[in-house]
Parts: sequence; structure tokens; C-alpha cells
Amino acid sequence: MNKIKVGIVGYGNLGRGVEAAIEQNEDMELVGIFTRRKPDAVGQNKNMIHISEIEHYKGKVDVMLLCGGSATDLPEQAPYIASMFNIVDSYDTHAKIPEYFSAVEKVAKNNGHACVISTGWDPGLFSLNRLLAESILPEGKEYTFWGKGLSQGHSDAVRRVEGVQNGVQYTIPMEEAVNKVRNGEEPELTTKEKHLRDCYVVAEAGADLARIENDIKTMPNYFADYETSVTFITEEEFKEKHTKMPHGGVVLRSGKTGENSKQIFEFGLTLESNPEFTASVMVAYARAIYKFAEEGFTGVKTVFDIPFGYLSPKSPEQLRKELL
Amino acid sequence: MNKIKVGIVGYGNLGRGVEAAIEQNEDMELVGIFTRRKPDAVGQNKNMIHISEIEHYKGKVDVMLLCGGSATDLPEQAPYIASMFNIVDSYDTHAKIPEYFSAVEKVAKNNGHACVISTGWDPGLFSLNRLLAESILPEGKEYTFWGKGLSQGHSDAVRRVEGVQNGVQYTIPMEEAVNKVRNGEEPELTTKEKHLRDCYVVAEAGADLARIENDIKTMPNYFADYETSVTFITEEEFKEKHTKMPHGGVVLRSGKTGENSKQIFEFGLTLESNPEFTASVMVAYARAIYKFAEEGFTGVKTVFDIPFGYLSPKSPEQLRKELL
Repeated sequence: MNKIKVGIVGYGNLGRGVEAAIEQNEDMELVGIFTRRKPDAVGQNKNMIHISEIEHYKGKVDVMLLCGGSATDLPEQAPYIASMFNIVDSYDTHAKIPEYFSAVEKVAKNNGHACVISTGWDPGLFSLNRLLAESILPEGKEYTFWGKGLSQGHSDAVRRVEGVQNGVQYTIPMEEAVNKVRNGEEPELTTKEKHLRDCYVVAEAGADLARIENDIKTMPNYFADYETSVTFITEEEFKEKHTKMPHGGVVLRSGKTGENSKQIFEFGLTLESNPEFTASVMVAYARAIYKFAEEGFTGVKTVFDIPFGYLSPKSPEQLRKELL
Repeated sequence: MNKIKVGIVGYGNLGRGVEAAIEQNEDMELVGIFTRRKPDAVGQNKNMIHISEIEHYKGKVDVMLLCGGSATDLPEQAPYIASMFNIVDSYDTHAKIPEYFSAVEKVAKNNGHACVISTGWDPGLFSLNRLLAESILPEGKEYTFWGKGLSQGHSDAVRRVEGVQNGVQYTIPMEEAVNKVRNGEEPELTTKEKHLRDCYVVAEAGADLARIENDIKTMPNYFADYETSVTFITEEEFKEKHTKMPHGGVVLRSGKTGENSKQIFEFGLTLESNPEFTASVMVAYARAIYKFAEEGFTGVKTVFDIPFGYLSPKSPEQLRKELL
């Protein structure tokens, strides 16, 4: 079998997740990991390559998996790399997707490459389920709940509070709200009723805990509109219990058909490692975009444009026989 | 807007569900309902047409939705109707799908039509989720639980027992088993541990209830391998509480990624009306196959070959902006 030759661009949590996911897929082969850091400093016994060398890999890598951040890395890297390679990314700034799509598409088409953007789980699998559910149940109401999960942005906000040495924030769906939706009650839910913000904070020695708690709970945009819980812990407890990156959530649609029959559609993920799961989704989509490239497609696709059959190493015949 | 002109073949529960679903989709228009019965006997004020007239509707119907049964209707009807129209069906005899696919594909290709077979939820949405989950989490274990739901086959079996006047059987997932899977324990589950068979029986006057209960519980293939519950009720209670057709279930995959991180993927449906939901899925796939036919596709597709974007009346641009 000809393996699909892939490259990784960026070696943070997501990049390491992709590296591990490739190991689980026999039809894939890792050519190299491209990094802006000094390759020697990043890892021994790995094929680490400085990003400036990437153009020398044209024709040697079938798909590049872009593992940088959406704020600054991807808007700069994706068009550049799509001029040389087929790419997959997990661009997740929802509001800017149309603009990003256009920027990558222009380069991909001009240079004859195939790309899939905004894979992962939200955007990604959650988006797919929102689309599927509303297409099947046009009369209905959709809800997305996130968590229990670590929110990077909110954890950063906690750590910026004066007197905070370390901190983490978990977003937790309100069980009562989720159950109302599951019962088909189609509730109107405020922000406060949907999610709880659960913070674990290590305070600096001598810091005023009451003031820290108040600063967090009243912080505009991040916490003021939510029910927020603040628990002070030691640095030891923090290191022991709060260094993983769990996440997940549910997409629910409650609809009505025919003679007023309630129909509930639910998709959920419970992830011990958010970056590893996102990486696993990216790898499946790398296989899909490789197949599209082989068929001659050039341009950009999203998860909405890719049949699930393309995600699998199995043939259409095998899929119909085993999984339909 | 040019509406998609659809026809319904067969007017049982599923056909009536399709009729209702078309009402919920503004881009669709019902041309007629084709039936083997005397059209006058079926419904007033409806465009009921005898099946023998179907060939006169060539060119007047964009997609025919086949609502017959999988045992005898569809294997006979689908190839015949695919010689004249694009079709959608919910063929659900899992083991015979490859053979059925080939039979329909030959006719569809020879006559230039586009078909999608085996839509609905299992096969259908459940199959899609099994495929998606195993493509993303290749190292893992998949579980499907059905119910709480009415099983037509098992209800028929109950009614065949001597002394039974009326009866119904619900398949119910064992909560303990489902929770073990959700916790990522990857249990090995026997048939008995996965589902409970819950029967409600109206006995004939003077019948031996203990013998009926024993006959049901020991019935090979249907009940002997399961934990089975039998409750005797009156005909009135039966009519009041047991004439709906609820169903549903969950597809779960428990997988591992990277550094042994547990990742749980779950898709679930809770349906008050199984036929109405299946019908709603068929209507969304009718839209998809219509678009493929417009693009010039001929042959047969399954849910594995159709991107979700095709299911929606929205444009790709709108979908990226609103739902990704």
C-alpha cells in the first residue's frame, strides 16, 4: 500500500496530538515536523525540520497538517503553505471563517492544491451535527452546551487577576438546562442558565482571597454574566489535578414532526484530551482531502462538503457491507 | 424558487410521515401519492394515484420517495421505479444491502437516474456515526443500543402466542451497560446485558396467563436469550398507552488517543414517532439526490457518499457563515 505522506506544522499540544494520531493510522506516514523553534531544542530522535526548509519538501508531502493557533499563526501560514501543499487545519475563529476560506481558496486554486479548513469538533463535528439536525428537523430548536471542559481563554483571564499565581477555569453545562432540552421542553435559556464557570485558583502568599474571588466573579465578558464558582487550592493540588485538557459538550436539537411528535437529536463528546481528539479529527480529514486531491479537486472544502466515506481507509464496498 | 417535485410510493405509516415532512420543507412540492390500493379508498382530497399510472409521471416528478417494506416491496419496486425516476428509500435489511445496491445501480445507470438507498436512522444516521467514530478513533470499541422503542418483529411474535389478543414489545437499553460504556470501561457485553425486552399483553378471556408468559419468555431467537418482562393489561389500557411508535437509541464509541486519553463519542435519538423521523431523514436525502442529479450524477449513493451540505436548502456560503 502507498502510504499517505503527511507533515506537521507547529509542535504544541495539537501538533503532538497529530503525531500520536498518525501512529494509529496504518495508511499514513509522517515525513517531518516543521517548527519555528530551533529543531534541536524541540525533540531528540524526531524528524524536526525548521519551517524555513518547508519549500524543499514540495512533492514529498501529500498533506500538511497545520497545528498553529487561529489568532495569528493560521491566517499567515495557511495561504503560504497552501501555495505549495494540500493542507488541513482546525481554524476556529467562527466569525472570520468566510474571509479565511476565501483567502486560502484563492491560493489553493491558483496553485492546484486541495485544502480542508476548520476541522476539529467545534467548528467541525458539532457544526456537522447542527447542519444534519436542522436539515432533518426544520421545525425545532438547537442547543449547544460545552463542557465539562477547560477553557483556555477564561483560564488566562483568571491568571491575569492580581495575586493569582496559577489558575484554571472549567466550563460546565447546567444539568437542569440540559435535561429540559432532552425532555423536549424547548426552554428559552439565558447565558447564566446554560453554563457554570468553575475556577480553581492558587493564590500568591499573603494575597487577599476575598478580593481575588470578587475580581474574578465581577470580571466583565468573562464571568460577570455567569454563575461562577471559585475554589482556592495549593500549587501541589493544581499540579496533581488540573494540568489536563479535558473538554466536550453536546449538540441537541428538539423538533416536531407530523402529528406533533417530539423528536430529540443529540450528539455528545466527552474528551479527556481536547487537543488529542482535535488532532484525530484532523488526521481523518487529511485522508479525505488526499483522496479529493487524487481525484483532481483543487480549492477549499469544509466538513460540510466531505462525505464520511472519504474519512475512512476502507473502500466504499467494504463500508456498505460492514457499517451500513 | 423552483420547487423540488416529489412523489410518494406507498401510503402506510412511512408514506404518511413523508407527506407530513414535505409540508415542513418550503423547497418541496408533492406531486402525488402512488398506491396499490384503490386510490378512492385511501384518502379524500389527496392526490392519490394508482401505482399502474406511475409511468405517465416521467419527467413530472424529480424524486420518488419509496415507502414500502424492505422484505418484499422494495426489492421489487426499487429497480422498476429507478428505471423511470430518481429515488430515495429506507431499505433496511442490513445483510442484503450490497446485493440490493447492485440491483438498483444497474438500472439507475442504464436509465440515467440518481438514487440514494438505505436512508433513515439505522441504517442511516447510526451508520454515519459508526463510520465517523471509527475513522476518528481507530483504537476503540463501538456499541449500539436500541430503544426505548417499539419492535415490530417482536410485537408480532408476542401476538402469535396462543391466547394473546393484543400485544406490544419495547426494546429497552440496560442503563448499567450504557453507563459502563459512557465511563470508558469498554465492557464485553452479552446480548442479555445490553437490552431488556418489555412486553405488554392483552390476553383473551379465560386464557392461562402463566402459560402465555412462559411461552413468550422461552421463545427461541426472539426472547429466550434476553431478560424479558411480561405485563398483562386490558384492551382499553392498550389502546390508550401502546399505539404509538416510539424508538431511538445510541451509538457510542469509546476510544483512546495519545497518552492513553479516554475519548467518548455518542450519538443518540429519542423519537416519539419512528416512521415520522425516518420519513424526515428520507426527505432531506431527497433534496441531496436531487442536487446530485442536477449535477449529472447517475447511479446509486448511500449516506456514506453524501456530504451534509447537500441535505440543506441553504447555500454553501450561508452554511459556512451560519453553521460552521
